Amino acid sequence: MNILGAVNEDDVLGRFYGVIPAGGVGTRLWPLSRAAAPKFLHDLTGSGSTLIRATWARLEPLCDGRTMVVTGRAHRRAVLEQLPELTNANLVLEPEPKDSAAAIGLAAAILYRRDPSIIMGSFAADQVINPVETFQAAVREAVHTAAEGFIVTIGITPTHPSTGFGYIRAAGPLAVAGAPNAQAVAEFVEKPDEDTAAAYLADGGYHWNAGMFVAPVDLLLKHLEANEPVLHAGLMEIAAAWDTSERKAVVRRVWPTLPKTAIDYAVAEPAAAAGDVAMIPGSFGWDDVGDFAAIGRLNAASEVSNLTVLGEGARVYSENASGIVVSDTKRVIALIGIDDVVVVDTPDALLVTTKEHAQRVKSAVEHLKASGDIDVL
Amino acid sequence: MNILGAVNEDDVLGRFYGVIPAGGVGTRLWPLSRAAAPKFLHDLTGSGSTLIRATWARLEPLCDGRTMVVTGRAHRRAVLEQLPELTNANLVLEPEPKDSAAAIGLAAAILYRRDPSIIMGSFAADQVINPVETFQAAVREAVHTAAEGFIVTIGITPTHPSTGFGYIRAAGPLAVAGAPNAQAVAEFVEKPDEDTAAAYLADGGYHWNAGMFVAPVDLLLKHLEANEPVLHAGLMEIAAAWDTSERKAVVRRVWPTLPKTAIDYAVAEPAAAAGDVAMIPGSFGWDDVGDFAAIGRLNAASEVSNLTVLGEGARVYSENASGIVVSDTKRVIALIGIDDVVVVDTPDALLVTTKEHAQRVKSAVEHLKASGDIDVL
Repeated sequence: MNILGAVNEDDVLGRFYGVIPAGGVGTRLWPLSRAAAPKFLHDLTGSGSTLIRATWARLEPLCDGRTMVVTGRAHRRAVLEQLPELTNANLVLEPEPKDSAAAIGLAAAILYRRDPSIIMGSFAADQVINPVETFQAAVREAVHTAAEGFIVTIGITPTHPSTGFGYIRAAGPLAVAGAPNAQAVAEFVEKPDEDTAAAYLADGGYHWNAGMFVAPVDLLLKHLEANEPVLHAGLMEIAAAWDTSERKAVVRRVWPTLPKTAIDYAVAEPAAAAGDVAMIPGSFGWDDVGDFAAIGRLNAASEVSNLTVLGEGARVYSENASGIVVSDTKRVIALIGIDDVVVVDTPDALLVTTKEHAQRVKSAVEHLKASGDIDVL
Repeated sequence: MNILGAVNEDDVLGRFYGVIPAGGVGTRLWPLSRAAAPKFLHDLTGSGSTLIRATWARLEPLCDGRTMVVTGRAHRRAVLEQLPELTNANLVLEPEPKDSAAAIGLAAAILYRRDPSIIMGSFAADQVINPVETFQAAVREAVHTAAEGFIVTIGITPTHPSTGFGYIRAAGPLAVAGAPNAQAVAEFVEKPDEDTAAAYLADGGYHWNAGMFVAPVDLLLKHLEANEPVLHAGLMEIAAAWDTSERKAVVRRVWPTLPKTAIDYAVAEPAAAAGDVAMIPGSFGWDDVGDFAAIGRLNAASEVSNLTVLGEGARVYSENASGIVVSDTKRVIALIGIDDVVVVDTPDALLVTTKEHAQRVKSAVEHLKASGDIDVL
């Protein structure tokens, strides 16, 4: 409730539709996460749920079945195993990866064809959020704000001067019914260096860009059309055929021709420059599980003598050792006299590194790719 | 040649018989070395030969087929694969381990029954020695010295103040034809602490006890009889039946009753106290491959960017890493930003430790045994 008067909760929230883009190999979590079994299909927090299942469950109270998943064809079976409630109408399979603008834009275009009044919310399948109630409250505010004609990002309130994320610069409160925390967005800024990150944290007006946004599908498509007309036209052509017998033929013809670009460049940044972006601050705990150090943090509760052990039936013996063990085999693993180690044991590949160097796993994977060891990627 | 006059080389050296006790799991090299595939069956130096094959080859110019191997029944097939020249007469299989006094004593007793004038030389199957010519020259001196009525140990000239070996204290030169370096032995001393080890090194009169000795079989058995009469009687009973159809029955009846003790306590130390032990200093390079740090040292030539990699077909990718990788699988192993690490990758067990802590692997194995994880031991 604010000065603009009462809001009909049901009307606005009933237009909300969740979209879960489930892509990305999670290279920095190799060899656990890999092309055939990406990050979102793993339970990386010891919660008992895979990341995609947890994402779905988080949206369900808001969506009640109105959640669409966009993923690669190769993951169809695994995604359906995780989300048995997912209907065919809500499963969008990409023939090949075309980056986030195509994935999210296709969802927007299909939803628009079905109901142009839909307000969609896009939430990556591989993030960890707690508590979910705080997240859901932020999304509700975002939906109300989107209904006022904004692309609404949910900005994470920073807890430390991270150099690993882009930031969102707020530009003062917006008066929106049902969204007391809504703010205008001045701009998105790139990942900062350490000094800049410290200044952002001290400033208080900067939030982490977690890639979460809520937007009316028509507004999103309008910005996509303005910035990426070829991509927009292709997606609209596919969407027109999607719920018809022509889907397969049109997808086969058009999808390969689509330009690859990120939704940030194709929509979010130009929309911000046009004054069409708002933000709801998210004060919930958030982690994109970017590397093994994150897995260590997120599983702190399961620590046994300074060692975080993940994996069903893991047989780990440690003596004066600390760090993280991810066991995807039934092998006995003995760790002796080694600190802050990261050991990831899978049937065909083994990683040994340290928490400090966990970010560099990506370059190892690139090296393996270059050297032809693609069987384990 | 010395003042005692010319020696008939052939007469004395023709009495020499090599004995290779091939026992010991090599616990500190777990999980590479284990009950089913002990240390002596591995090529731990990248030489292309297993340790037992190299031991055999080292003795062959002195023995010309007169080399006996004492090992566990479980290793019969693997030993014959390594030593296809080994005759049945020279293969002694223990029904169960009874420690070194029983193993070496049985070889002595069998050889004594066949020819009481034999001078046997006992050399463990899992040591690394270079150059072999220097070793062989020392053994020849030892045989000449043994022929004078000594149990002759070959003492390794220390290269550093090791606390990991027992020492032999020399007591001045002996005048023996064909053995210009022979010395009397005052005593065997236990593994010293660091200060004591440094004092031994400075003194110059101490050598490492490598467990290598050469002795007339009758003299060895005489000391065994005096110190371990039950063991001696049992071994003599088995030896009497060995080359007859009674072997199996007698071994089955007597072997389980034999006391377990080390040859050091049963023979070497009391013989030294009786003034019956001599020493030939061994100035060759010697290593008992006691832990993974030793494997690193012994394979220094194969170092690639500070990482020693052992294992056929190993697929190791490293970035800012140093240490040792032993790969007994075809898995890809990625090491990133980690120093002096020891990684031993086998199909059912993985060890991650550091060179510094490599000696503590033994306690890990004991822990695994206690916790019931015996399938991987």
